[in-house]
Amino acid sequence: MGNTVYIISGPAGVGKSTTSQILVQAISKSAYISGDDVSHIPVNGRGKPWLDKDTYDLTWTNILSLTNNTLDYRYDVVIDYIAFPKEVKWLAQALSGKGARIVYVVLLVDKKTIAYRDRLRSEEAWMGERSLELLEQFENDPELSDRFKLYTDQYQTDQLSMIVEEIMSCDKYIFNA
Amino acid sequence: MGNTVYIISGPAGVGKSTTSQILVQAISKSAYISGDDVSHIPVNGRGKPWLDKDTYDLTWTNILSLTNNTLDYRYDVVIDYIAFPKEVKWLAQALSGKGARIVYVVLLVDKKTIAYRDRLRSEEAWMGERSLELLEQFENDPELSDRFKLYTDQYQTDQLSMIVEEIMSCDKYIFNA
Repeated sequence: MGNTVYIISGPAGVGKSTTSQILVQAISKSAYISGDDVSHIPVNGRGKPWLDKDTYDLTWTNILSLTNNTLDYRYDVVIDYIAFPKEVKWLAQALSGKGARIVYVVLLVDKKTIAYRDRLRSEEAWMGERSLELLEQFENDPELSDRFKLYTDQYQTDQLSMIVEEIMSCDKYIFNA
Repeated sequence: MGNTVYIISGPAGVGKSTTSQILVQAISKSAYISGDDVSHIPVNGRGKPWLDKDTYDLTWTNILSLTNNTLDYRYDVVIDYIAFPKEVKWLAQALSGKGARIVYVVLLVDKKTIAYRDRLRSEEAWMGERSLELLEQFENDPELSDRFKLYTDQYQTDQLSMIVEEIMSCDKYIFNA
């Protein structure tokens, strides 16, 4: 088997970035792609990825290119971004020639926790309604199989390594099994 | 004529990032690619781009992919990275099908200024000897034509928009003229 591409998804405020960072550090040859950073490469004249089709397409095309190139150099890749099954399917299809394992995890928490964590961010970074909308979108996505969902409510911050261990060892998260 | 790719180069401490940011803001449809950020996509198991061939190759391959994709969406692209004529030639060659104008600017300052500016950074970001080495490497590169060099010693921080204006309007910086 070749390398692994981890897609750490979920609504804003579930701990995607923190979880991704710990995962990246747990792998001996690893790369980290922040979907948010990639979506900010266009500066003037771009839209919000979830509202503007061109910005959305360019963001995913860039994520795909970076993943492709990085796999060529035999890194495991951790993608930290809001990704629905539709996008993961597209990515898996586009990477199918690479022989890479695609691991897909949707981190979720209950509504109260997500609203609370959002308020802990700096004011400019508040997602507000958007966080709750995304949570509902994930929970109601008919294409999202339960096996990819990982509820993190019961974990404390110092238990994040347990989540990472589960992500790395649990076969149910393999998208292209 | 198609879009423009600006490569803002020079040793650490010459103001590449600040100049690039102002340039990006001066263009109505613009994208910003930080070579440093791209070089940090591999996390564990990478070398320093200037010492490790694989890390170097992956960084430039990623910069090329991002530039290619972003040009497809009709953005002007600003690349902020230490780039020598060798790399610019390679990039221009790889992008030759796009009909894009490649603008190449090597920002330079005298040795004293570069050492002084380096000390203004936070300690973790000090480049030290490496800054001066790079300055010498640029000044002694036989492939680097004088027309791409832009000495910024005489400019004050509040005059950066004059540098940007010169970069945008002066034909001598066009690499593939």
